[in-house]
Amino acid sequence: MVGALVVSRGRVIGRGYHHAAGQPHAEVLALRQAGRRARGGTLYVTLEPCSHLNKRTPPCVPAIIRAGIHRVVVAMVDPNPLVRGRGVAQLRRAGIPVTVGIGRAEAEEMNKAYSHWVRTGRPYVTLKAGMTLDGRIAAESGASRWITGPASRQEGHRLRREVDAVLVGIGTVLADDPALTARRPPGLVRPASKQPLRVVLDSRLRIPRSAAVLARQQQAPTLVVTTAAAPRAKRLALARKGVDVLTAPATKGRVRLAACLKQLGKRGITHVLLEGGSELNAAFLKAGLVNRVRFYVAPALLGGARSIGVIGGRSPASPAQARPLHHLRIRPLGTDFVIEGELQPH
Amino acid sequence: MVGALVVSRGRVIGRGYHHAAGQPHAEVLALRQAGRRARGGTLYVTLEPCSHLNKRTPPCVPAIIRAGIHRVVVAMVDPNPLVRGRGVAQLRRAGIPVTVGIGRAEAEEMNKAYSHWVRTGRPYVTLKAGMTLDGRIAAESGASRWITGPASRQEGHRLRREVDAVLVGIGTVLADDPALTARRPPGLVRPASKQPLRVVLDSRLRIPRSAAVLARQQQAPTLVVTTAAAPRAKRLALARKGVDVLTAPATKGRVRLAACLKQLGKRGITHVLLEGGSELNAAFLKAGLVNRVRFYVAPALLGGARSIGVIGGRSPASPAQARPLHHLRIRPLGTDFVIEGELQPH
Repeated sequence: MVGALVVSRGRVIGRGYHHAAGQPHAEVLALRQAGRRARGGTLYVTLEPCSHLNKRTPPCVPAIIRAGIHRVVVAMVDPNPLVRGRGVAQLRRAGIPVTVGIGRAEAEEMNKAYSHWVRTGRPYVTLKAGMTLDGRIAAESGASRWITGPASRQEGHRLRREVDAVLVGIGTVLADDPALTARRPPGLVRPASKQPLRVVLDSRLRIPRSAAVLARQQQAPTLVVTTAAAPRAKRLALARKGVDVLTAPATKGRVRLAACLKQLGKRGITHVLLEGGSELNAAFLKAGLVNRVRFYVAPALLGGARSIGVIGGRSPASPAQARPLHHLRIRPLGTDFVIEGELQPH
Repeated sequence: MVGALVVSRGRVIGRGYHHAAGQPHAEVLALRQAGRRARGGTLYVTLEPCSHLNKRTPPCVPAIIRAGIHRVVVAMVDPNPLVRGRGVAQLRRAGIPVTVGIGRAEAEEMNKAYSHWVRTGRPYVTLKAGMTLDGRIAAESGASRWITGPASRQEGHRLRREVDAVLVGIGTVLADDPALTARRPPGLVRPASKQPLRVVLDSRLRIPRSAAVLARQQQAPTLVVTTAAAPRAKRLALARKGVDVLTAPATKGRVRLAACLKQLGKRGITHVLLEGGSELNAAFLKAGLVNRVRFYVAPALLGGARSIGVIGGRSPASPAQARPLHHLRIRPLGTDFVIEGELQPH
């Protein structure tokens, strides 16, 4: 997520932001809008301009120099090892003063997923769930529709558009048959929106051919991650439907989560939205692979010693070993409220 | 909870509040402080002054008239059928103008427990629990110390001093052996504070003689509520320790909760703090006997499909039947946050 402004004599004369991978960079769009007036101006950009040729778009530093920009203000250095300070150094070598760090905290927050992906090779994982105040995501019957109100569900769809992939376990597919697409509120007519990759973890390929998550592959592709134990016939049937099947390493018959995330990272997935269920949430947490949680909380009590909690699995022996959340944020949303926090301190 | 001020020529010349049942009323204390300067002044009081003789203290209306007060401002009418407008009427008959309803919402909030008790004969029930963000009050091992931080636990003790009784199930006594007294933070030296009645629901008198809740009967009395099924010997042993044992009607071997609350109401208990466990919380909720919940929430995830949730019992078949909370309030407290809500709309 990068934005850029060209400012001349105290006025903004060019604006740009990076729309999507493979599209022109923010700086290029802003310079293009400013045109010849950019000469002598200042470029403000949230991420260090790129200097390398190792990608689909031309590097930004030469374009900035050519445009005659006299000063560059950068919020944060690009954590990508192909850049990491080289863009700033090239600008300075060309005699352009560069200020780094103005608005760094905000830029880092915005690019958290990208930075994590560059650093670890794995996507940033946001665990998202709708639950009652007592932490329940489904009744003991398994019924989960609806826990939260329309405003929360609508924001859930918006969140799907902001990530690269939405991931669930096969249990959730079998119980709820979700489509996992990012849908707009009815009545809101707009061009077809960007859809996240839909990912299902399904170690034995139990997914029914009629599952909603397998429909409409043209609009929203699906990746089913399985293990070597999956039947070959089912694998072929899915391929015939245009569904991508990835065989990941397994531990005790289950997809090894870190390995699965590495594979997603290799495909350029920088941010995954983990949408359950209870057991998969617990497995991701236990593996230390959840970066952030976002809970949509309905102000209601479901109860039930056997109803389904947001985090299943085994609990630690003592409450002292509960996983702490950092930078907790709470805000109201419709009739619900949203609680967000990070799993690791930074 | 009643407070009163005497104001003369724009200055407060008398203040008083009702310390405890059987103690002088707020108005009397405020008038006593104002002395002869009260003549011609205005009395502000949060609850209608009493007019009846049916109690330990003399009625306030004659005292107000005698003091020469020229105007009375009352926040709310006393819901007690022995008063309910009679105090206001008596004042007006004596030629004193009375304004009713200034600050009514605040006064009603403050006297919610009292009003409920007067109306229903049962104490107001606040369900209180310390839990993780995922609604857990104990690990699957049963360990529950500590879920919340020191600030929450300290407020929990303060809350005990504000109610007439603290109530738990025998399961909590057996699992956690709580003392249920209101303790001050260590180092804070003050006169011995008012202690709530400690109530244990124990249908078969399984309570161990060494239970912490049975100790120190001089400082904080305990009432054990049981059924006719309890062994006579155990009953006598408790009586010998100075512990009060109440036999309540039973349904399916369990203490009938509404009947138990009626008994407490008869003893002048207007506000009960229900402190668990999971199953008793569920039973109270199911019976519609919880008026308010207050959760101290630690920003942590405990997880565990078999760890202990704040509300046990059976869940309804669908999330649509979850019990809604009204007037939800959230505030930070130390490292935790507090969520409070009412079970019934008013």
